[in-house]
Amino acid sequence: MTITVFGHPASTCTLVVLHSLKELGLSYEVVQPSSFEEIKTPEYIATKHPFGRIPSLSDDGFHIYESRAIIRYLINKYQGTKTSTILIPSDVHKAALVDQFISVETSYYSPHLSKLVYQLVFKKHHGGEPDLKIVNEARDEIGKTLDVYEKLLEGKDYLTGEFSLADLLHIPYAFYVFKIGEGDLWNKRPNVSRWWKNLSERECWKNIVTEYKLLELEQ
Amino acid sequence: MTITVFGHPASTCTLVVLHSLKELGLSYEVVQPSSFEEIKTPEYIATKHPFGRIPSLSDDGFHIYESRAIIRYLINKYQGTKTSTILIPSDVHKAALVDQFISVETSYYSPHLSKLVYQLVFKKHHGGEPDLKIVNEARDEIGKTLDVYEKLLEGKDYLTGEFSLADLLHIPYAFYVFKIGEGDLWNKRPNVSRWWKNLSERECWKNIVTEYKLLELEQ
Ligand SMILES: N[C@@H](CCC(=O)N[C@@H](CS)C(=O)NCC(=O)O)C(=O)O
Ligand SMILES: N[C@@H](CCC(=O)N[C@@H](CS)C(=O)NCC(=O)O)C(=O)O
Repeated sequence: MTITVFGHPASTCTLVVLHSLKELGLSYEVVQPSSFEEIKTPEYIATKHPFGRIPSLSDDGFHIYESRAIIRYLINKYQGTKTSTILIPSDVHKAALVDQFISVETSYYSPHLSKLVYQLVFKKHHGGEPDLKIVNEARDEIGKTLDVYEKLLEGKDYLTGEFSLADLLHIPYAFYVFKIGEGDLWNKRPNVSRWWKNLSERECWKNIVTEYKLLELEQ
Repeated sequence: MTITVFGHPASTCTLVVLHSLKELGLSYEVVQPSSFEEIKTPEYIATKHPFGRIPSLSDDGFHIYESRAIIRYLINKYQGTKTSTILIPSDVHKAALVDQFISVETSYYSPHLSKLVYQLVFKKHHGGEPDLKIVNEARDEIGKTLDVYEKLLEGKDYLTGEFSLADLLHIPYAFYVFKIGEGDLWNKRPNVSRWWKNLSERECWKNIVTEYKLLELEQ
């Protein structure tokens, strides 16, 4: 069995796949595109990802793209075989709540955070100036979302009570927020801040930060 | 067993839930908010949806929000009990491809279609003028996405070969596109157009169109 991830550790969508692989105890290799341009070539589009993105994954001849689909595949196939970590529980009601918070993350969290991080990290790195109107709007929207999270996390260690894929999917953007000095968005909300403490201290995530030198990584 | 959907048949997110309920052969009742303002009240936010949206669903005391999570819950709990329709297959590789196309829909299809439909349907209805810059950009992006679909659908009746939740999630926006006279986006791409024919002729969808008078419905 060889699992190959095509992606880049600076990409949040790749990081959630790598983190999931570690939580499930699976070994893998990462193949990075040689350049940003490579993922737009006809060959890449024909063989890796028809929309020209990262990540994708190959597992013993089976190829799949889109981070959320990749992770669900890994869970369906391998969860419980190497570690006892449960990313999606088998109980139908517990699984429903995990799916609910996965959709919350996709709908009200990542769209705003991706704008903030794009402006303050990736754009800056490529020599551009952040658009402060977009930055401020994104910050406001993230604030509103985190106000809701603050209530949802009352008395809880994780979104559904126990650690799950829903929590894991929030980690890379939160990591970037702290890295770029916007951590106050988290720190001033006690429940959100406690939650981040629980997440950032997961052994597998700490290994990712070290292994891929995320703190030093230039975007 | 009583399944209650809180939502509105003019909302695409509600429609995918209603369509799934019908494909699974489940009976349900729909409770509509009395006004747009209702879904922003503290009571609604505390009891139905913390982000002030529709739809949500209650099933025998279990409450859940977010359309994609609701549908996965219904599939996990009821698929195969009333009809033979399979929205997510049990085979791990087949399920992975369904998940892949669900993520494709969320990432490259609905974001652009929601802009187009918002400008040309909902905004117009509320007395606003569509922003033509947004309309044109959205049309371009949808065109690019459908060019990829055109290739992916070569020789196939449905995205993964067989009808699945991935196809179902594309239906309401495509329906609106035709209703507002933008059907050429579909018609000029033979595979996409054939796919839409297969989808729009599903018995359960036709029942939805009739039952909720979608063709006459004012947005
Ligand atoms: N929905 C996709 C998103 C993939 C995506 O947008 N990846 C980014 C990196 S995080 C990328 O490839 N960016 C390059 C581009 O958009 O051209 C997933 O979850 O995998
Ligand atoms: N991610 C949510 C989206 C819910 C959503 O945005 N619903 C729309 C109707 S399709 C709504 O409630 N709009 C009112 C608003 O945004 O205030 C889902 O899939 O259920």
